[in-house]
Amino acid sequence: MKFTKMHGLGNDYVYLDCTESGPGDLPGLARRMSDRHFGVGADGLICVRTSERADFRMEMYNADGSEGEMCGNGIRCVGKFLYDKGLTDQTELTIETLAGEKTLELHVEGGTVVSVSVDMGEPILTPERIPVLGAGESFLSRRIMVNGREWAVTCVSMGNPHAVVFVPDVDRLNLEEWGPAFEHHAIFPNRTNTEFVEVENQSTLRMRVWERGSGETMACGTGACAALVAAVLSYRARRIATVKLRGGSLTVRWEESDGHVYMTGPAVTVFEGEWPDT
Amino acid sequence: MKFTKMHGLGNDYVYLDCTESGPGDLPGLARRMSDRHFGVGADGLICVRTSERADFRMEMYNADGSEGEMCGNGIRCVGKFLYDKGLTDQTELTIETLAGEKTLELHVEGGTVVSVSVDMGEPILTPERIPVLGAGESFLSRRIMVNGREWAVTCVSMGNPHAVVFVPDVDRLNLEEWGPAFEHHAIFPNRTNTEFVEVENQSTLRMRVWERGSGETMACGTGACAALVAAVLSYRARRIATVKLRGGSLTVRWEESDGHVYMTGPAVTVFEGEWPDT
Repeated sequence: MKFTKMHGLGNDYVYLDCTESGPGDLPGLARRMSDRHFGVGADGLICVRTSERADFRMEMYNADGSEGEMCGNGIRCVGKFLYDKGLTDQTELTIETLAGEKTLELHVEGGTVVSVSVDMGEPILTPERIPVLGAGESFLSRRIMVNGREWAVTCVSMGNPHAVVFVPDVDRLNLEEWGPAFEHHAIFPNRTNTEFVEVENQSTLRMRVWERGSGETMACGTGACAALVAAVLSYRARRIATVKLRGGSLTVRWEESDGHVYMTGPAVTVFEGEWPDT
Repeated sequence: MKFTKMHGLGNDYVYLDCTESGPGDLPGLARRMSDRHFGVGADGLICVRTSERADFRMEMYNADGSEGEMCGNGIRCVGKFLYDKGLTDQTELTIETLAGEKTLELHVEGGTVVSVSVDMGEPILTPERIPVLGAGESFLSRRIMVNGREWAVTCVSMGNPHAVVFVPDVDRLNLEEWGPAFEHHAIFPNRTNTEFVEVENQSTLRMRVWERGSGETMACGTGACAALVAAVLSYRARRIATVKLRGGSLTVRWEESDGHVYMTGPAVTVFEGEWPDT
């Protein structure tokens, strides 16, 4: 069975063309192939399928075999996979995911896709929809105590909950201490992802992210969007900025006309493989 | 460039056929390919080459680009690679390594190699050759203090230094505490690998290993040999036993006739790949 290993900012998946047919037991296959010593090694498995509502559909499985809803780094690679493999010649695509339909714009150079923009939709600022415990229309720069220290926290949902805090130096932060303290803080009913953001200038943010259930990761697309939104709302950044993550950089734009957040970033094919299973 | 990903007990390398020609800058290629998020993901890179002295030569690079001397799990896969790819039809092979020439015996089922025996040579018991600080001909079950606790330690070199200790239950041991305490103990001038061994019965040992410079690993071939030698010398095991490691099992035999230790274990092809670099 042929597969393609791809990554977006180091967030790496095994990609399968399942537009005509595909293997069975995808959760089991995801577990076997994702194993980093006994398998291909990946954060999970993404199957590209046909769709009745959109141009294509992505079906993703995490390394533990559970089904994932959507992944900003993964969906960019889906765009590259479809175009580079000749499954489409469109540079605008709609992709059906468990988190709704997403629109991609592919940026092609020399016949292959080098980066992809994703319409991430409108940020959600209402506390009960994020969710975070608090009255009012939004949760902006509110002072809360976390592990005995006061933090000014802005909460944003991009389909999943984010808490954004601004710090003077992201490199000097012990995320192993602060990440879990935010994740499990009593004001987040569904726990939270947390972005620790350093403002380099109005067009450049540096960020480290603690993902709910995963710990520190190299990149989080929805987190980068939440960070830009929080920075714009507190007049720290312009509506378009580069967000530097450990795994690389994203360009995030909060478009004034439609209120949507657009994320642009790289999609990279690492290698082509042939898996002995069927 | 074609490559094969293989593992022995989860110790995984990228294998290249360099018998006719091969890529340049192998240290750089090893670093790029070994990266588990941006590359193929492996413990390192092994090139199979022709040899003037032996049947073939293995040249190995660790994930950081440094050159490795030999690897018991890796050399078994070299045997399978050579036979399965049709580079040899012999089932006994000599392989030149930086740690000397090694002899392999390939076990073939259905046209492919399923396991390989490696002649690991004679164990070294003399303290100054291991090296460990201590008088006498050997260092067997000597009581030393490590981090405030007394341990009975047996030292064996299989080309690299090992300290073997017997414990009632390997699962209930905090290796993060004890591993470094042994590794950096003052009696080991070159530091040491340490095997924590539980005797299930005279033919079965369970073992966890702390590798010098790496921490706990899933399997260590020379460590399994050292464990069997220490168990035989203290009448805990027969001269042939199964050694169960986290990554799987090895059969280790300390042959009476020639004094050599023979290690038999699996070699597995995970997948075939095509790397875009040349």
